[in-house]
Amino acid sequence: MLKPDFSKTGGLLPTIAQDSETGEVLMLAYMNEEAWDHTLSSGKATYWSRSRQKLWIKGESSGHVQMVKEIRMDCDGDTILLKVDQIGGAACHTGHRSCFYQKVERDGTVSVTGKPIFDPDEVYKK
Amino acid sequence: MLKPDFSKTGGLLPTIAQDSETGEVLMLAYMNEEAWDHTLSSGKATYWSRSRQKLWIKGESSGHVQMVKEIRMDCDGDTILLKVDQIGGAACHTGHRSCFYQKVERDGTVSVTGKPIFDPDEVYKK
Repeated sequence: MLKPDFSKTGGLLPTIAQDSETGEVLMLAYMNEEAWDHTLSSGKATYWSRSRQKLWIKGESSGHVQMVKEIRMDCDGDTILLKVDQIGGAACHTGHRSCFYQKVERDGTVSVTGKPIFDPDEVYKK
Repeated sequence: MLKPDFSKTGGLLPTIAQDSETGEVLMLAYMNEEAWDHTLSSGKATYWSRSRQKLWIKGESSGHVQMVKEIRMDCDGDTILLKVDQIGGAACHTGHRSCFYQKVERDGTVSVTGKPIFDPDEVYKK
């Protein structure tokens, strides 16, 4: 039984969430050891929120949880890849399916790809 | 013209390399602003090596460069996604196609998926 090396980079390891069906990269967030343990025990992608400094069960407030289908660890044991079923269809707080909706051309121009799936004001309403 | 926000996380932004054809996630490395500029100008994925503390044109020594087909930036502007054509077929220094060749089960057991494409001792020989 081998764990990622949480002694690295201040205990926070970058974690990629990828759609298990389409292969689309949905988002990147960070895990500490507590988030890792919670992900394994619950089967729901759980991160450490750097801004809120607390455990972040993705989708806890929006209902858009990520059901973990497969877990991968990289060669150095310091990056995690989750293959997930994204409930609600969108991983991004903007309502876009993927957080990577901004396409950058080699001349530096940026365009937005796709349209939001949901209205964030509706999903995150008070 | 919008750049990723290199003022964050000490100027180093996590960068995911994904196979542009298959969608397989190949590796994660870090870019500083110099690496970003070099990636855009050269069309070859260029990172900042944290261990060697220098610019790292991926594949410079092995010949296994990553030709950049598409560049994406996330909603917060602090993570980069490159869709690449991985020359030589393998992104990992171990010879595996992807660095994420270790599969972790929810009970914590780890298995190796796939076989190395090349022999690292041959590719990185002195």
